[in-house]
Amino acid sequence: MTDLMNDELEYLTFLEHLVEQAGEIPLKYFRAGLAVSNKSPRNDLFDPVTEADRETEQFIRARIMAQYPTHTVIGEEFGRSGPDDSALTWLIDPIDGTRGFVSGSPVWGVLTGLQRAGQCLVGAMRQPYLRETYIGDGRSASLTHNGQRTRLGVRPCDALEKAIVCCTHPDMYREQATQDKFREVLARCRFSRFGTECLGYGMLAGGYVDLVVEGGLSAYDIVPLAPIIEGAGGVVTDWQGNAVTGGGEIIAAGDRKLHEAALRLLN
Amino acid sequence: MTDLMNDELEYLTFLEHLVEQAGEIPLKYFRAGLAVSNKSPRNDLFDPVTEADRETEQFIRARIMAQYPTHTVIGEEFGRSGPDDSALTWLIDPIDGTRGFVSGSPVWGVLTGLQRAGQCLVGAMRQPYLRETYIGDGRSASLTHNGQRTRLGVRPCDALEKAIVCCTHPDMYREQATQDKFREVLARCRFSRFGTECLGYGMLAGGYVDLVVEGGLSAYDIVPLAPIIEGAGGVVTDWQGNAVTGGGEIIAAGDRKLHEAALRLLN
Repeated sequence: MTDLMNDELEYLTFLEHLVEQAGEIPLKYFRAGLAVSNKSPRNDLFDPVTEADRETEQFIRARIMAQYPTHTVIGEEFGRSGPDDSALTWLIDPIDGTRGFVSGSPVWGVLTGLQRAGQCLVGAMRQPYLRETYIGDGRSASLTHNGQRTRLGVRPCDALEKAIVCCTHPDMYREQATQDKFREVLARCRFSRFGTECLGYGMLAGGYVDLVVEGGLSAYDIVPLAPIIEGAGGVVTDWQGNAVTGGGEIIAAGDRKLHEAALRLLN
Repeated sequence: MTDLMNDELEYLTFLEHLVEQAGEIPLKYFRAGLAVSNKSPRNDLFDPVTEADRETEQFIRARIMAQYPTHTVIGEEFGRSGPDDSALTWLIDPIDGTRGFVSGSPVWGVLTGLQRAGQCLVGAMRQPYLRETYIGDGRSASLTHNGQRTRLGVRPCDALEKAIVCCTHPDMYREQATQDKFREVLARCRFSRFGTECLGYGMLAGGYVDLVVEGGLSAYDIVPLAPIIEGAGGVVTDWQGNAVTGGGEIIAAGDRKLHEAALRLLN
């Protein structure tokens, strides 16, 4: 085993414990006291989420900085910290799917991932209400549910007409041209599922859906998920076929042929 | 306590055990072997669901017919059985949200309810992966999660601009005019969540969302949910403001004022 692989194994173990512990924080806020927020004026409606978001990210940040003080950390709530010259960067989305979270739906997750020089190394998603942890290193991926681990693997699906496609919201694209391309892909697929948030990528890695097409993502929304998707045998890029480390418009497929077919339609 | 209330209490107890036991059947099929179906031709893709659907409904039917042989039973898979002249009719949707089910998402449920002379008496939804049972009798409603029972209650929300609205799919309306009205309501709301299936009504009863607007429902899709929504303090009707026993276009709200505001926009 190379040193690199030894390192990655260490990162994976660290990451799995980290997101499992971190997930207990938003779980305290989930479906609890959120109703109160409805009495507030419109702009304050997300306050309980912000609180859960911040507390979760602070917990994850502190653990990473204690364990790997020479690494960079970037999170949704608190931006960038750590040395500027580190090749290794941790990305944190403390609650991916805040709208699912405030709606009381268990379709949200705690995301943390590690990238080096534009490459996603290891990543994890924790859904504490479901007691699920999705984790991967680009070569393999697993789901731990209630402490039981199973290997994740995509399923074959070589054409849009056979594909189940997921997306968080049909109106998540800011530009009309992008929206139109998205709708063209959707119209060709067998059927579409909305409201999937980060869980859609987990379903793809598990071999239950075939395609996820989304827009307007930040790097921390997708970098932690890439090693899971790729570890399960899938492929994830932006709409131009590039690495996802920049976020933006993202397309993930379980089958490389499907990914190619969708990219042709999008470009 | 009147005889009627004694009966309803008996129905509630029977129903709660029934859906809890029945839920274990689709759970065996959930995320298991579904990938295999992808190798089949397009029309066979739902086979494992049909199997789970049938087995679940048969289980529920047999229990009801053994316990209440003078009642009518109507289910999604096997139609009507029992005497024609019974005032009491049980309605079964063995797996509500089959598309969620095949997608590996825990957003589906086992629904069973009882109606008498156009009135929804008692109803239950079981989500076995989440270990949740939503149950109600129109006067009160509860959620049992992992064996722990909590009372369900809607939240106040008197205007569309403050409302979170749920819907299973934005394209679930067959007629363009209906679709347009639906989109008009959505555009007025704070934000929309799709892909919610029967769980959307549970979230409304729990006070996490404010409005559910859907179309093309069958009676067995909504009759079991009405006593939960109403028991939590909400209101559910068709788009004309009538009882939901006929299915069709449905609107549920946690706050009566919001229901009125949405109905005005829809008519």
